[in-house]
Amino acid sequence: MATTGPKYHPVATGAATETVQQHQEPEDLTLWAGWFCPFTQRAWIALEEKSIPYKYIEVNPYLKDPGFLAISPKGLVPTLTLPDGRPVNDSLIICEYLEDAHPSSSPLLPKDPYERAQARTWIKHINEAVVPAFFRLLQAQPSEQDKQAKALAELNEALRTVCQKVKGPYFFGEEFGLVDVAIAPWAVRDFIVQEYRGFRRDDVPGWGSWAEALESRGSVARTTSEKERYVEFNQTFLKNEGHSMVGKAARSGRAIE
Amino acid sequence: MATTGPKYHPVATGAATETVQQHQEPEDLTLWAGWFCPFTQRAWIALEEKSIPYKYIEVNPYLKDPGFLAISPKGLVPTLTLPDGRPVNDSLIICEYLEDAHPSSSPLLPKDPYERAQARTWIKHINEAVVPAFFRLLQAQPSEQDKQAKALAELNEALRTVCQKVKGPYFFGEEFGLVDVAIAPWAVRDFIVQEYRGFRRDDVPGWGSWAEALESRGSVARTTSEKERYVEFNQTFLKNEGHSMVGKAARSGRAIE
Repeated sequence: MATTGPKYHPVATGAATETVQQHQEPEDLTLWAGWFCPFTQRAWIALEEKSIPYKYIEVNPYLKDPGFLAISPKGLVPTLTLPDGRPVNDSLIICEYLEDAHPSSSPLLPKDPYERAQARTWIKHINEAVVPAFFRLLQAQPSEQDKQAKALAELNEALRTVCQKVKGPYFFGEEFGLVDVAIAPWAVRDFIVQEYRGFRRDDVPGWGSWAEALESRGSVARTTSEKERYVEFNQTFLKNEGHSMVGKAARSGRAIE
Repeated sequence: MATTGPKYHPVATGAATETVQQHQEPEDLTLWAGWFCPFTQRAWIALEEKSIPYKYIEVNPYLKDPGFLAISPKGLVPTLTLPDGRPVNDSLIICEYLEDAHPSSSPLLPKDPYERAQARTWIKHINEAVVPAFFRLLQAQPSEQDKQAKALAELNEALRTVCQKVKGPYFFGEEFGLVDVAIAPWAVRDFIVQEYRGFRRDDVPGWGSWAEALESRGSVARTTSEKERYVEFNQTFLKNEGHSMVGKAARSGRAIE
């Protein structure tokens, strides 16, 4: 079947290989995933963090397979399906679903209502400021110095704002939670903008230590593939040929989540 | 103090007048509000719906008063403050906060985790599709027929998608909930695009009956001002001179919530 998307390695690699292999048997929950997708990684981290049994199915969302479109009308990963096939779409809605359905296993949201509101406020900031700036920077070409400098400054500023609130090692202190889940896939991927776009962790006070804590968290490490495979996948963005909704949304400045 | 925003009636009118008058005494919670603001109305409806005591303070967000900026860094209404002054910003985060802090008084989210995920999915659709299309239509000038037709088609389509899921009279059936809260302010305001932009409720199957149920809900009716005051406030959008973040976001196509 023809694909208009980027060419990329079809399956997870590195540490994620074993995690995928361990989740091939039928379970009540099925994660329809793209190993390369930071939004998939959010849902995947939440499942691992909460030790919820799940089956992992790799999907190439660019193929727009009718079977997949039936459970994900926009054709986006991640999608989570329940035993009766009912789907939950959107990375953070999946995380909140897992939290609602399994409240006592490693809670990802604080109990205190005000702290929960704070978590939601900073997740919104990550979605509306950090993630779009990351994708704008990724797509700003070496020939577009002004655009690159602007996107870099926006990413630094967006990260700086949230990093000021991090208690350390995680957002709320010792407990790893949903704000950490929401940003962790970009801690995993910021090496790309370091290598290709002049981003430096040291330019954002607090980001280096937070990002290192996130990268080395078991649930994050176990869902992370080899660096060169991420670079390979992101070539299409590095050359600004992105076909995905992420690419289009980033170019138009819309929030991405 | 100078304002760069629209000129508008400074206080709530109509049915909302009495509601404001009844909420002038100090309470644990304070709602920093703009009577004209649909996002304020969401938080206001939630407070009324759950019968939570609150003090109402009218804010002109265009004045960028330093005291208000201290609790709402972006200068946006609504903001909710707790007894110790800590703020919660963003209409839906305020609603979720009220739900978390007062779970048993008129719950706005279903108990079932899958239904909660469905509610969040449709609220996201309202924020990302319905609300931006409404503002694009409001701002599409009579001289811009193509733009107006496009925005009208987008609004109809966005409404049609969610209306297909409404059980009636409210989104989940007999229980008024957070999906209803999220869209109700636009049921209150769609008369403006009916009068000025060719929108017709009958063009969207199911919207007329849902919108009527929403408008006549006590919590919605009690937080609604006089129609001519909404038109007056929205003159700046009808003439496409919007100064607010809503106007800018709508013009750029971003999600608004």
